[in-house]
Amino acid sequence: MNKSLHDSLFMKALRREPVPRTPVWLMRQAGRYLPEYLAIRKKAGSFMQLATNPELACEVTLQPINRFGLDASILFSDILTIPDAMGLGLYFETGEGPKFERPIRSQKEVDDLIIPDPGDELRYVTDAVSLIRKELPENVPLIGFCGSPWTVATYMVEGGSSRNFSIIKAMVFQQPQLMHALLLKLANASVAYLAAQIEAGAQAVMVFDTWGSSLSTSSYKEFSLVYMRHIVAALKADPTTRDTPVLLFTKGGGHWLEMMADTGCDGLGLDWTCDLGQARERVGNRVALQGNLDPGVLYGDTGTVTRECHRVLKSFGNGPGHIFNLGHGIHPGVDPERVTDLVAAVHSFAAIETK
Amino acid sequence: MNKSLHDSLFMKALRREPVPRTPVWLMRQAGRYLPEYLAIRKKAGSFMQLATNPELACEVTLQPINRFGLDASILFSDILTIPDAMGLGLYFETGEGPKFERPIRSQKEVDDLIIPDPGDELRYVTDAVSLIRKELPENVPLIGFCGSPWTVATYMVEGGSSRNFSIIKAMVFQQPQLMHALLLKLANASVAYLAAQIEAGAQAVMVFDTWGSSLSTSSYKEFSLVYMRHIVAALKADPTTRDTPVLLFTKGGGHWLEMMADTGCDGLGLDWTCDLGQARERVGNRVALQGNLDPGVLYGDTGTVTRECHRVLKSFGNGPGHIFNLGHGIHPGVDPERVTDLVAAVHSFAAIETK
Repeated sequence: MNKSLHDSLFMKALRREPVPRTPVWLMRQAGRYLPEYLAIRKKAGSFMQLATNPELACEVTLQPINRFGLDASILFSDILTIPDAMGLGLYFETGEGPKFERPIRSQKEVDDLIIPDPGDELRYVTDAVSLIRKELPENVPLIGFCGSPWTVATYMVEGGSSRNFSIIKAMVFQQPQLMHALLLKLANASVAYLAAQIEAGAQAVMVFDTWGSSLSTSSYKEFSLVYMRHIVAALKADPTTRDTPVLLFTKGGGHWLEMMADTGCDGLGLDWTCDLGQARERVGNRVALQGNLDPGVLYGDTGTVTRECHRVLKSFGNGPGHIFNLGHGIHPGVDPERVTDLVAAVHSFAAIETK
Repeated sequence: MNKSLHDSLFMKALRREPVPRTPVWLMRQAGRYLPEYLAIRKKAGSFMQLATNPELACEVTLQPINRFGLDASILFSDILTIPDAMGLGLYFETGEGPKFERPIRSQKEVDDLIIPDPGDELRYVTDAVSLIRKELPENVPLIGFCGSPWTVATYMVEGGSSRNFSIIKAMVFQQPQLMHALLLKLANASVAYLAAQIEAGAQAVMVFDTWGSSLSTSSYKEFSLVYMRHIVAALKADPTTRDTPVLLFTKGGGHWLEMMADTGCDGLGLDWTCDLGQARERVGNRVALQGNLDPGVLYGDTGTVTRECHRVLKSFGNGPGHIFNLGHGIHPGVDPERVTDLVAAVHSFAAIETK
C-alpha cells in the first residue's frame, strides 16, 4: 500500500489513529439516487450486466467519488455474486428483488456446490477491483465486500428475498447439519473471494450481514456470527491479507456488538438505531465504529442534514476511531444535493470542533 | 376484577408475583394459520368486515383459547382502527397490506382530525370487548391494545405500509411541529380508546410500536417513546384505569428497554433478537418481560419447538415476571399442531423445573 493510502483518513480511523477530521463514505453511495448512475444503468441493460462489466462497474464506483469527494470508495457489486458463480442462476425481477432459478434445499445440492474460483467465475469482480484501483485518486482507499454466509444463504435457500424466512428457519431448526455445511462452504468461498479482492487492490473489506437479525441471539451466534468469525480468522491468518482491515455490519445487531468485536475484526458498522457513544463505551477502543446517520435524514433539507450529521458526530464524542456513514444504504429518491450537504456537514464539524 | 382473573397466571406474572408455571399467550394467536379462522374470514368477506363485527370478532378471539388453552386472550382487531375512525378510509389491497384513501400531510389535515369517540365511531370495538369478556372462561384475562402513535402515524402519513418511510421522515426532520401535533392527537385518541376497552372488560392493555425502530435513538425518544409515556401516564393518572397493567412493545427496540421501563409501564414485550436474561439484568424487577421465541421456530418439528421453548424459558432464569410469547406475531403457514407443541412445552418446563 502506498503512503498516501496508508495515511488516508479512512485507513487511519480504521486503525484508531488520530485524524484531523472524521472520514466519510456512504453505503450504496453509487446507485439509483444518482442521475449519472441511472444513465449507465440504462446503457448496460440489466443490473447484472452492469455489475459484471468491469469498465461500467468501475465507472459507477467512481461517480460518487468524483461528485462528492468522499474519503473511501466501495466496489460496485452485489452480495449475491458468489451464489451466482456457484451456478444458482441469479436474476432480478422488476420490483421483486433478486431471485435464484435453482435454490438449495438438500444435502446433495449443498455437496454439489462448487467453491467459485475468484480468478475464473468471479474474474469480472477482480478485474473491476484492479481497474477501479487504477482509476481512483491515489489517496482514496477502495473497500471490497461480500455478504455474510448467513445472509447469502437466506437468498440461496429461500430462492430470493423473504419476509418470514420460513424455508431456511425450518432448515436451521430441523437440519442444522445441512445448514452448517452450506454456511461453511459459503464462508470458505467468501474468504477466497475477499482475498482475491485484496490481492487485486482493495485496502479494506466489509462483510454485510443484512439478515443476521432475523435470528435469535443463540441462533445468531451459531449460524451467522461464527461464520463471520471464520472469515476474519482466515484473513488474519494469511500473511497476504492479514494487514487488511475487516469491517463487519449486522443490520439490527446493536445488542451483539461486543460479540462482533470479539471476532478480531477491525471495525463495526452500526445501524441508525444505535447510539454511537453507548456503543463505544461497550466495545472500547478494540474496533473502529462506522455509521450511523438515519438514511431518512436525507429526505430532509440542508439544515436538517447539517444538524443531524453534527448530532451523530457529537454522539461519538472526542477521540479516534469513527468513520462517518449512514446506518443503512442511501434510499432511492434522495436528492444528490443532500449528499453534498452531508459531506459538507462532516467537513464543517471538524472546523467547528477545532475552533 | 373477579378473584379468578386477579389470581390468573398472566395477571400475577404481570405483577411479578410468583406463579406455579410461566403463563403463555401468542401475538396474532387468532389468525390466518388457523383453519377455523380462515372459515370465518371467508364468511365475513373482507378483513375489516370481520374486525368490525363484534360477534365474529368475538368468535375468532376465542378460537385459539378453545383450541390451545392459552393463559390470556387478545382482542381480535387492528392497530389502524383509530385512523379509520378518524375518517381516513382504511382499506386492504390484496398482497399489499393496509392503505388509506386520505393520507395526512398538512397542518390543516391534522387540525381537522377528530379524536374518535370510543362509544360511537369505535363502538364496534368496545362491543366486541364486552362480548368477548362475557364469552371467555372467567379465569382467562383479556388484553386490549392499540398501535403506538408513531407506528399508526407512519401509515397515516405514508398512506399505507412503507419501505423507507420517505414522507414521514421528511415530516419528522422538516416539520417536527406538525409531526408532534399529529402524534399528540393520536396519543390522546389512544388513551380514550384503551380506557374504553378497559371499561368494557379488558384486564390489561398493550401498545404495539411496530415501527419504532425505523427511528434513530434520539428520534425514537422524541417521536415514539414520549407518546407511549404519555399514554401510560394518562392511564395511570385516572382512577378507573390505573390498576390495569400496560405492556409496551417496540419491535427492534432491544437497546431501548431501560428507557421503555422508565415510562412506568408494567411489562415489556421483547422481540426474538433479545436475550431475556440480559434484558432482565438491565431492567431489573421494575417490569414483567414478555416473549420472545423466534416465530420461525414454529416452522420446525415438535422436538425443535420443545427444545427452543425450553431455551427461552431457561434464558429468563428463575423468579417471577415472565410471560411466554413469541418475539413477533405467528406467521401464516404455521401448522397449528406446532402451537399445541409450544403450549405443551411451556407446561412441561414447569414440571421439569420443580422435579
